[in-house]
Amino acid sequence: MTLQHISSYAHGEWIAPGSGARTIADAVTGEVFATAGNDALDVAGMRDFARGKGGAALRAMTFHERARMLKAVALHLDGHKDALYRLSYRTGATLADSRIDIDGGIGTLFAFASKGRREMPDGHVYVDGDVERLGRTGRFLGQHVHTPLRGVAVHINAFNFPVWGMLEKLAPTLLAGMPAIVKPATASCHVTELCVRAMIDSGLLPEGAVQLITGGTGNLLDLLDCQDVVSFTGSADTAFALRSAPHILRNSIRFVAEQDSLNASVLGPDAAPGTPEFDLFVKEVHREMTTKAGQKCTAIRRILVPDAHVQPVIEAISARLAGTVIGAPDLDGTQMGALVSNAQKRDVLDKAAIIAGEAERVHGDPEAFEVSGADAEKGAFVPPMLFHCADPERAERVHDTEAFGPVSTVMGYRDLDQAMALVNRGGGSLVASVITRDPEVARRVTLGAGAFHGRLYFNNRDSMAEATGHGSPLPHLVHGGPGRAGGGEEMGGIRGVKHYMQRTAIQGSPDILTAITDQWAPGATEIEGPAHPFTRRFGELEIGETFHSGERQVTLDDIEHFAHFTGDTFYAHMDDDAAARNPFFPGRVAHGYLLLSFAAGLFVEPDEGPVLANTGLDGLRFMKPVTAGTRIKVRLTVRKKTRRTPDYGEVRWHVTLTDQDGDKVGEYELHTMNAY
Amino acid sequence: MTLQHISSYAHGEWIAPGSGARTIADAVTGEVFATAGNDALDVAGMRDFARGKGGAALRAMTFHERARMLKAVALHLDGHKDALYRLSYRTGATLADSRIDIDGGIGTLFAFASKGRREMPDGHVYVDGDVERLGRTGRFLGQHVHTPLRGVAVHINAFNFPVWGMLEKLAPTLLAGMPAIVKPATASCHVTELCVRAMIDSGLLPEGAVQLITGGTGNLLDLLDCQDVVSFTGSADTAFALRSAPHILRNSIRFVAEQDSLNASVLGPDAAPGTPEFDLFVKEVHREMTTKAGQKCTAIRRILVPDAHVQPVIEAISARLAGTVIGAPDLDGTQMGALVSNAQKRDVLDKAAIIAGEAERVHGDPEAFEVSGADAEKGAFVPPMLFHCADPERAERVHDTEAFGPVSTVMGYRDLDQAMALVNRGGGSLVASVITRDPEVARRVTLGAGAFHGRLYFNNRDSMAEATGHGSPLPHLVHGGPGRAGGGEEMGGIRGVKHYMQRTAIQGSPDILTAITDQWAPGATEIEGPAHPFTRRFGELEIGETFHSGERQVTLDDIEHFAHFTGDTFYAHMDDDAAARNPFFPGRVAHGYLLLSFAAGLFVEPDEGPVLANTGLDGLRFMKPVTAGTRIKVRLTVRKKTRRTPDYGEVRWHVTLTDQDGDKVGEYELHTMNAY
Repeated sequence: MTLQHISSYAHGEWIAPGSGARTIADAVTGEVFATAGNDALDVAGMRDFARGKGGAALRAMTFHERARMLKAVALHLDGHKDALYRLSYRTGATLADSRIDIDGGIGTLFAFASKGRREMPDGHVYVDGDVERLGRTGRFLGQHVHTPLRGVAVHINAFNFPVWGMLEKLAPTLLAGMPAIVKPATASCHVTELCVRAMIDSGLLPEGAVQLITGGTGNLLDLLDCQDVVSFTGSADTAFALRSAPHILRNSIRFVAEQDSLNASVLGPDAAPGTPEFDLFVKEVHREMTTKAGQKCTAIRRILVPDAHVQPVIEAISARLAGTVIGAPDLDGTQMGALVSNAQKRDVLDKAAIIAGEAERVHGDPEAFEVSGADAEKGAFVPPMLFHCADPERAERVHDTEAFGPVSTVMGYRDLDQAMALVNRGGGSLVASVITRDPEVARRVTLGAGAFHGRLYFNNRDSMAEATGHGSPLPHLVHGGPGRAGGGEEMGGIRGVKHYMQRTAIQGSPDILTAITDQWAPGATEIEGPAHPFTRRFGELEIGETFHSGERQVTLDDIEHFAHFTGDTFYAHMDDDAAARNPFFPGRVAHGYLLLSFAAGLFVEPDEGPVLANTGLDGLRFMKPVTAGTRIKVRLTVRKKTRRTPDYGEVRWHVTLTDQDGDKVGEYELHTMNAY
Repeated sequence: MTLQHISSYAHGEWIAPGSGARTIADAVTGEVFATAGNDALDVAGMRDFARGKGGAALRAMTFHERARMLKAVALHLDGHKDALYRLSYRTGATLADSRIDIDGGIGTLFAFASKGRREMPDGHVYVDGDVERLGRTGRFLGQHVHTPLRGVAVHINAFNFPVWGMLEKLAPTLLAGMPAIVKPATASCHVTELCVRAMIDSGLLPEGAVQLITGGTGNLLDLLDCQDVVSFTGSADTAFALRSAPHILRNSIRFVAEQDSLNASVLGPDAAPGTPEFDLFVKEVHREMTTKAGQKCTAIRRILVPDAHVQPVIEAISARLAGTVIGAPDLDGTQMGALVSNAQKRDVLDKAAIIAGEAERVHGDPEAFEVSGADAEKGAFVPPMLFHCADPERAERVHDTEAFGPVSTVMGYRDLDQAMALVNRGGGSLVASVITRDPEVARRVTLGAGAFHGRLYFNNRDSMAEATGHGSPLPHLVHGGPGRAGGGEEMGGIRGVKHYMQRTAIQGSPDILTAITDQWAPGATEIEGPAHPFTRRFGELEIGETFHSGERQVTLDDIEHFAHFTGDTFYAHMDDDAAARNPFFPGRVAHGYLLLSFAAGLFVEPDEGPVLANTGLDGLRFMKPVTAGTRIKVRLTVRKKTRRTPDYGEVRWHVTLTDQDGDKVGEYELHTMNAY
């Protein structure tokens, strides 16, 4: 049989394996079927190609353009799923496993494409937080912004999710405007390579945006500087070796790590046998143990249950595990496939033996289990193994040994305080779950164990129909954890995009800030347009274009009339004595919504025009009470524009209401939808 | 002369110097006047005391309580400024220098006290970002929160700002709810000790919240884990030595570093001699060179000017430097004092010699300069030294050698692209400044050099009256920089507080999220109160308490009437045909503000009661157009409560407007001020 060549994609070319290539074996048959890696790979050239070509092209695009690119790539990959599923059988993954990997990866692209358009600007500078006034008159302001790093992101991925593992890092990286060099684990890099081929062939990515190394990275990490990022997923030992390199430390090179994690799941004190929560708990634990044959960084390694429920939990989980069909992943009916390799199988069995020093194996015997449709000796099969640790407080290894397979340990707890102390013995984890319907339990766990976890997952009968699963990292939520879990964060929506950008505090005059952020800063120059801004199309309006209305006097009649018309007869508007007793009012005052309504009357253009609708407003603050006789006027300034479709765009207007003394009585941001 | 004892403050006791103590010399006379440090210090006991006593006490307080504590400490220290100024003369600092250190430090406490109350909740969980819906019906939600880390923050500070350097780290740490062990640089630890004594004596801090190590830290760093933080300010070499310790790396212990930085200041292409910007530039450079005798991590080390203006700039800066009086810091008329120590003086002269290999010294001769009121031989005096580097593109050392004293190098640039490339040669800096009045220059610099900088400072004639200075880190803005500057961030308002907390993604049902965050999550249980919530006092209202209004029909008459009354005769409200041509409307629709006003009419209680005022609203979105004949009703739910004074509190109400079909037509968050 000829070996398949799993190539690298470097500076625009596919480079076949060469000297120093490694072999890849089929997880199910143990047979070597491919090689990957080439010592002659020009990694310095790849770095320069990424920085020069890819980075420049990506930075020339806006956040929205890059988001649309991600969506197009996701749609394109959607058409390649079947080929990816088929190839994934060789990694031991069942179709259900591959759906998590492949559909999950594509879904992550879609999610970032959507968040990028909704939560980021259609420009080049991401604005972080509010303007800070740094002086009395507002002539000098502060504003944090993010801009893309100018280097390359090196993504070092684990073997378990060859597609999702790549795409969950690529999505925020590309959205940020940074190119990437992807280095998948060799054991499953054939699946990653097929996915990269599909992306490259699509022509949707600029040249240099994505490159691939199957095999070793040579001295690539020694060629990086402060504009580059290393994002690593894998074992704590490998992470330590990489991040302790003097070159990485001396240059403060960002190193995002997601490594070992002894995730716990806790059966709440309220979730006794017979409750829907008890059944849910057993189901979630079983799923986490067997999905992907337990090769998930988020899988449940420690099962904490009230002392009284230890036996019922062991029995219920064991019964489910006993019914789980292990076998060839491409066979109908197989519920759990193989580990990725025989090396991985040896490692899992070694780790299980360590755990066995402190815990009794209560289910699953690696010497005696059934495998359907494959040769259990040749393939990387192990049975799910459940342990019971009788003294988890004195035990050490059950809290720090990650057997990266279908292995988990049940431990009893006395009360919630002890449960949290045991959960925290993981020394920092990606996730812990608690199956409880008691909100007070959830609150106590958050305060007591939140600091040790990147994610806390609470589930019960109310949420279980929609719950996403203990083990599923979501693009919206951060994935990562402190301490043993590596101290990194990935995803979390736009939070994850920021890992590939630099946050910079900008100080300057309002005009300077306006130019940098594409948002009108209070105090910046007001632009006088050729006509009322409501008569100007989206494309014509300039940031800073301003309209000053005429005045309108608010009379006591207006206040009375408005009160009776709307039904808002609050005493502060109706009764002078009562209003004066209120600590905030001098006497009868106008309704806030009356002012808002009169303001609209002062600036609205009645005729058909480019302003299509008032869609909302933000940050309305009433600053000074308005009494009868006050004359108000409005200033309306184009603050920000965001194109939404080829036909429409959203305009945000800075609106200030002042009285005849020039004092601000109200301020807000008005939203309109405008025709292009 | 007896030597002063500069003590440590450990587990509630003052520990005098002992074996292994180091000596401290007066910067002005060179005379040894004190000792500090004790090898017998029980650092493990300090860690346990901080974690056990200090952490528990701080975490029991709310963010607001801790913010008020910071304010009280700031007010207390305000009464000890004179003693601190006096003691600081021995560090070589003038009164003006000490004001930056001492008043600046106290001001930072005030700023965090204020931000803590305005931007954080009066509770124990900080909510980060919006609720994420994770399923179709909203029965399972996501929300990021921050909770305090459960360990101790070890603050390792530089010698140059013995008070500010401590307080700028302490303020966010204590606000987060974490205790700290402060380790100042020995050369100026007598000033830090005095400040810590004042804080401890005030009795305002819980026991264990702040401890002090003057002298060495022993093996403290080897005793930390994932719940601890090391925050370091100092040299790149020391940072490297500390952060590369395997124990730190293996446990992913947070290490915030602020180290060397070759900060640049750029004279904009538009800022020719004769402009106010040119004069401003010369003034800022001079100030940065001489303040604190140039011993500031943010000082200007590289001065970039258009090629044509190199000579005028050298002349103007030299003229100012020539008029700068160097001398005893406690003498009236002294403008620049001494460096902190003779060791520091030797280091600065060594670094200046390295720079001299690539640049010509054009002002200042360390062999010949005047010192008034002190012995130039015995004290740590150096003159300000200005260099000119003729070929900055080929030079190396001028871009990577930080002479931590009054030393700076002028370099010419051809165009803005070259200027940015040279600025970025610093390899990551805390700050760069650009004196320009051209907003386009500011925008290009942000896009071209932002990724290399933690802060970009733009100044010109418009902002100079209020500008805070190139070299001043502000509590509102992040202080830190990538690469050579250490890759860390400090302060930045609440951003800096997050360094001492763990971010956790919470997943759960709306009721679970409500209990954890103290904010009503959409979909959570609605609580029926004993009366209309507007009749209930702040202290009585429960999160989730809900009012359902009756219905009101919106008639065509209402729309017409409102239009004529307010003046908002927009065609979509007035003309059925025109409205139907609008892509968003089926025909004539009600004004958004009419709905808002009717909604208030439906829920307002007219009589005097605990609701004192409607102060504003946020997040108003109109979701479905309302045509004549529609019947609307309102749901009003207590979302969040924040006590503001002993008498009042702010209530935020989740408000939903629905039509007779149950469809949402609008949603917003209403703010009221309520009597306690």
